[in-house]
Amino acid sequence: MLRWLTGGESHGRGLAVILEGVPAGLELRAEAVQRELARRRLGYGRGPRMRFEEDRLSILGGVRHGRTLGSPIVIEIANSEWERKWTEEMSPEPGVTARRLTAPRPGHADLAGMQKYGFDDARNVLERASARETAARVAAGAVAKALLGEIGVAILSHVVQLGSVKVTLDRLPTLEDLDRIDSSQVRCLDGEAEELMVAAVRAAAKEGDSLGGAVQVIAHGVPVGLGSYVHWDRRLDGRIAQALVSIPAVKAVSVGEGVEIAGLRGSLAHDAIVGPSLRRATDRAGGVEGGVSNGEPVVATAWMKPLATLNRPVIETVDLATGQSTRSFRERTDVTAVPAMGVVAEAMLALVLADEALRKFGGDSLTEFVRNTTAYLGHEARLPWREGSARS
Amino acid sequence: MLRWLTGGESHGRGLAVILEGVPAGLELRAEAVQRELARRRLGYGRGPRMRFEEDRLSILGGVRHGRTLGSPIVIEIANSEWERKWTEEMSPEPGVTARRLTAPRPGHADLAGMQKYGFDDARNVLERASARETAARVAAGAVAKALLGEIGVAILSHVVQLGSVKVTLDRLPTLEDLDRIDSSQVRCLDGEAEELMVAAVRAAAKEGDSLGGAVQVIAHGVPVGLGSYVHWDRRLDGRIAQALVSIPAVKAVSVGEGVEIAGLRGSLAHDAIVGPSLRRATDRAGGVEGGVSNGEPVVATAWMKPLATLNRPVIETVDLATGQSTRSFRERTDVTAVPAMGVVAEAMLALVLADEALRKFGGDSLTEFVRNTTAYLGHEARLPWREGSARS
Amino acid sequence: MLRWLTGGESHGRGLAVILEGVPAGLELRAEAVQRELARRRLGYGRGPRMRFEEDRLSILGGVRHGRTLGSPIVIEIANSEWERKWTEEMSPEPGVTARRLTAPRPGHADLAGMQKYGFDDARNVLERASARETAARVAAGAVAKALLGEIGVAILSHVVQLGSVKVTLDRLPTLEDLDRIDSSQVRCLDGEAEELMVAAVRAAAKEGDSLGGAVQVIAHGVPVGLGSYVHWDRRLDGRIAQALVSIPAVKAVSVGEGVEIAGLRGSLAHDAIVGPSLRRATDRAGGVEGGVSNGEPVVATAWMKPLATLNRPVIETVDLATGQSTRSFRERTDVTAVPAMGVVAEAMLALVLADEALRKFGGDSLTEFVRNTTAYLGHEARLPWREGSARS
Amino acid sequence: MLRWLTGGESHGRGLAVILEGVPAGLELRAEAVQRELARRRLGYGRGPRMRFEEDRLSILGGVRHGRTLGSPIVIEIANSEWERKWTEEMSPEPGVTARRLTAPRPGHADLAGMQKYGFDDARNVLERASARETAARVAAGAVAKALLGEIGVAILSHVVQLGSVKVTLDRLPTLEDLDRIDSSQVRCLDGEAEELMVAAVRAAAKEGDSLGGAVQVIAHGVPVGLGSYVHWDRRLDGRIAQALVSIPAVKAVSVGEGVEIAGLRGSLAHDAIVGPSLRRATDRAGGVEGGVSNGEPVVATAWMKPLATLNRPVIETVDLATGQSTRSFRERTDVTAVPAMGVVAEAMLALVLADEALRKFGGDSLTEFVRNTTAYLGHEARLPWREGSARS
Repeated sequence: MLRWLTGGESHGRGLAVILEGVPAGLELRAEAVQRELARRRLGYGRGPRMRFEEDRLSILGGVRHGRTLGSPIVIEIANSEWERKWTEEMSPEPGVTARRLTAPRPGHADLAGMQKYGFDDARNVLERASARETAARVAAGAVAKALLGEIGVAILSHVVQLGSVKVTLDRLPTLEDLDRIDSSQVRCLDGEAEELMVAAVRAAAKEGDSLGGAVQVIAHGVPVGLGSYVHWDRRLDGRIAQALVSIPAVKAVSVGEGVEIAGLRGSLAHDAIVGPSLRRATDRAGGVEGGVSNGEPVVATAWMKPLATLNRPVIETVDLATGQSTRSFRERTDVTAVPAMGVVAEAMLALVLADEALRKFGGDSLTEFVRNTTAYLGHEARLPWREGSARS
Repeated sequence: MLRWLTGGESHGRGLAVILEGVPAGLELRAEAVQRELARRRLGYGRGPRMRFEEDRLSILGGVRHGRTLGSPIVIEIANSEWERKWTEEMSPEPGVTARRLTAPRPGHADLAGMQKYGFDDARNVLERASARETAARVAAGAVAKALLGEIGVAILSHVVQLGSVKVTLDRLPTLEDLDRIDSSQVRCLDGEAEELMVAAVRAAAKEGDSLGGAVQVIAHGVPVGLGSYVHWDRRLDGRIAQALVSIPAVKAVSVGEGVEIAGLRGSLAHDAIVGPSLRRATDRAGGVEGGVSNGEPVVATAWMKPLATLNRPVIETVDLATGQSTRSFRERTDVTAVPAMGVVAEAMLALVLADEALRKFGGDSLTEFVRNTTAYLGHEARLPWREGSARS
Repeated sequence: MLRWLTGGESHGRGLAVILEGVPAGLELRAEAVQRELARRRLGYGRGPRMRFEEDRLSILGGVRHGRTLGSPIVIEIANSEWERKWTEEMSPEPGVTARRLTAPRPGHADLAGMQKYGFDDARNVLERASARETAARVAAGAVAKALLGEIGVAILSHVVQLGSVKVTLDRLPTLEDLDRIDSSQVRCLDGEAEELMVAAVRAAAKEGDSLGGAVQVIAHGVPVGLGSYVHWDRRLDGRIAQALVSIPAVKAVSVGEGVEIAGLRGSLAHDAIVGPSLRRATDRAGGVEGGVSNGEPVVATAWMKPLATLNRPVIETVDLATGQSTRSFRERTDVTAVPAMGVVAEAMLALVLADEALRKFGGDSLTEFVRNTTAYLGHEARLPWREGSARS
Repeated sequence: MLRWLTGGESHGRGLAVILEGVPAGLELRAEAVQRELARRRLGYGRGPRMRFEEDRLSILGGVRHGRTLGSPIVIEIANSEWERKWTEEMSPEPGVTARRLTAPRPGHADLAGMQKYGFDDARNVLERASARETAARVAAGAVAKALLGEIGVAILSHVVQLGSVKVTLDRLPTLEDLDRIDSSQVRCLDGEAEELMVAAVRAAAKEGDSLGGAVQVIAHGVPVGLGSYVHWDRRLDGRIAQALVSIPAVKAVSVGEGVEIAGLRGSLAHDAIVGPSLRRATDRAGGVEGGVSNGEPVVATAWMKPLATLNRPVIETVDLATGQSTRSFRERTDVTAVPAMGVVAEAMLALVLADEALRKFGGDSLTEFVRNTTAYLGHEARLPWREGSARS
């Protein structure tokens, strides 16, 4: 079972994550984590911050000689801008800011956060509410991906909607498509849609506006039997839903073709079981039935609203210092974060699946974890009628 | 902070829920819980089971003289069919079934559950995977609603899609609409749509088929500041997403207009802050910004797939006892459960909000909980510039 | 991983426990649970209540045909006195008591509970603070014992101190001693001490007084490697300490010879490792080193204060209704509960060890759990230098 | 509610702790944390490492301008020895050690840890099992102390036993005694005992041996009503027991006079309630009755075994590389860590109490937390008969 906490502010000294519960003996290289962090910065339409951001990574604990120790893994991501510009404004030492932000931005946590925590400076909110925090999730997700890789699970994502441009899918991408996806300017596999998406970003940029969209995130090779129907909070689809909607600006999620299927009749909506392999011809359920993984690819879609910070602030707000109506302050911003969000979604899905795999298979060392998984896949998960399994 | 566990099989002796963390002194009547359980059985298109089912309720613990004691609340819902038909088949005593179910139904947990737990009888899966389990959630949710009622939160739901029939909303229903909703055959507020929905159910019934759809669930009066952006798993929208997708057959969820907004530009997608009340003209965000409730109604949509059990089984499966292709066995079934699902969604939303309210406001007695809530609403949550709140 | 909640008041309709996380396929008979509940009533010096109490048990969920289903196990213990005497006083229906208890008993939660929850009737506290609640723990513990039995773990307890009479141990009792322990009037293995203990109980009874004491609880056959040093809250000894001190009236705990060893020099205080079996000549550590089970018997001592309710109330208190000094009210009481406490301590130790075993070995079915355990015991837990295990 | 994770190895780059759930607006200075870390290094009988160790502290997140932000607090403690000596041996980068430790030390997690995690080098165990890890707990505890200080709770500890030398207490030390305690060579308030203790340390040092002992840890000013009897795992004494026994080498704990009282009769063992203040003449219960704080000082004793690492290794073990009997390897060590352990015990007690206070009083800002606490102390916790509190 994994436990993890992240911390750190957007313009503070850095971010950190502590991830507890990873088995010992897993190969883990800083470069693997670094690579995922770099993928999080991908995408046409990212603003200047993404270019400045270098994610300088240190593994502070939990890894020795390239392998995990079973102890908590501590990863720190230093903020390269901190020393250049933010040492005073974001100092932990006593001090006062000369630049209170008092006009909360609609669409952000600014106002609700100020009221919840009793702040008079929106910076105290936005520093942690910022999506910068997802870098720590991606670091943790890189560890989860490494663990899942050892039992044959591979995770990827791609953009299926940017603004109003949607992709029509005719097949589920696999890990072999990932290079092409990542080298697309908008992490989109469909070349035609990509062009339209880039044009949409360009148009929005020109008008200081922003775009939302959607990504599909996919896990291949998930063993049958993760999650459970026995208690509501153990259902795999529910856990995936929380994990994805917890990504900043993601407001909707579907497991499999959840929205479309709701309009179909039952006779057309499910995935027939085909013998003798017990595989399915379709995967409308997104690999989860009754809250349990069914051996098909786990597939989910996450919809992201357009960024609420605009380079041309037009949304009305109130200056809390004066009570006057105004336009909200500007923070440096991207036009869209949908391509990057896919990488965060991969991390979140990996963390959920790794947690469920550890719950099911146990194991304090990688050897033990893999041995238990393999034994299960060779027994319970095989064709029962050939085995004559006996329990009533 | 609430903790709760449910148990019990669909055709077993009964269901139970233990709910820990409710303050002392809350008025709680068995009838209030009973009423919610009765609402869960509403809806045209329910099959014969719903008519048989009487939810015979006992409060076993946690309540004395009509008020909670602060101790765990124990509610048992006896199964009225148990004694008539299921005492042997579902006995906890040693025994053997004469009727193993070996042809797992696609769209259910049957096959994945058998593989996960090593069963050769799908009944061992379906008894707990059945939506009957949601009765225990509704009982717990009734307690959460009672608690929330004391701080002015009111929750309701209505059907916005049944099969392919969709409702066009021009306003957000309030508690005053609930009687009308509940007396609609399909829990739909729009009379025109209701007629089409009933017709759709009738048509599907005739063909032994089933229908999915969607409900909107709404919480009015939610205080600003529930949930938090400070850690991913404290985000209110993420928690709501898990709670709703954990309902059997719900495969997609949106907080606010999550799917539509993804296609809009940022300048059009957010909810302007209007002075001096700091209220919003729109509620596209569904009352949650940055993972925090913003004082507007909390609104979510849950999409449900059509029931996978059909009265005319046409979906292909494999008989695990023989390895032969077949059609899956029949269990007694409804045509659609969308109207009832709304009541379960209310319960789940209530449980999430009550938990977050207890986390924020604390309090071991109702008096203490309400006093803390009131004090906060009179201070932090008020217009900051009038108060001159001082912390930087 | 186990989760469990208990509920129910001492004189209410009954107690209930829901235990989530038990693998499917475990043989579980109501009689096995019943037997443990009967053992909890053992012991010379128990008052009349113990004779009235029959623990009428129902398994409401989670078990079919004598085996667990993997779903939450629901056990209800009806209160045989409820219908005879308590239906009004402890009714969940609205009502008023004619017998408010306003003179809180020192040594109980009465006063602190009234202040915490805002009560003016101590019955609202004592009904749940009563040790009657431990019956639900014993029921859950019976399930944990059954699970542990499948991997060779056996748990027992015996009284090592009653009042000022102490037992001198020359060996660790085993499961074979349990019948003799349970048939001792005070659950004591040492016949000489037993006589003195019975005399002490008799003398205290005559004077309306009560006695405390201590039990030793032992788990044989615990696999090496449960618990962990990697995080404070995963240390096995810490978890055992909480589990035992959480038993009503238990105020001190030791793992191994914790109190004695503190006064020894290091050279004399530890358990030498002897080859080639890697077993220990001594077990001063109580089977836990560095927070991890080391393969030796897990041994703990729990000290219990004398019951605070006396048949001759002499302890000063204040009547909260009048503000006057007084003696506290009487509830029916035992002279000592130390012998019974041992049975509760067994249950708590079993629940901790079962949880840790499930965490380490995983497994959704008994087959999977046992297979994983066996594979580990045949590999990692064996003599490493014979295997040439290779990881650095 | 507090959540916290620690990470980092003894000779790695550093330690880190992330503490989630602290209200916003709490004054927190790095120096306050630093001071507690320095106190952890106190004590005659500490070895050379304590002199080398400077705890170079950084607050990475959660604090701005001297006040907490409500976001997770991230504290990093760099290891000053890392760069001098351990960069290769403890590098996270791939590599091999030339110095495998293969003779596990009895009394440590070495052997059980190697078996649990499948290691062939005890360093992989001891680096995290080392008590160095408690520095991170002390850092987190410093934050908890600061929070508790705002509601009038003050925590301290002192040594009551070192080796076989015991202190006779005639009064409970208060915060005003802390300077004198900390300036004692062995953190002992009793000058006579101190001399004997120092002599005992000197004698043990000469013979390369080690000493255990006991500390008493005290919290003054704890509000009545923390913890609860309503569920076993909410009992305050149980939580304190886990927190203290989780400290490395602590094997026994008592809340109040837990061991002594077990031998007394009930009429002598409890704390009379005296009007009109409802205070107690004695505090044998250690401030906790029925699992709930009762307004008296919370007092616990923790017994620590003598350190298992000796400067003159005499305890038999087996070299796992050869199977031969041997003496275990030496790590640099102290003669006793009892004085320092008291500081860790303070931190653990503070973390438990802060968590329970946040659970009871809620509050996202310090203002809200303190306001709720104050209101409760002015109402529920006051003399009920003067108020005429009305709930039945």
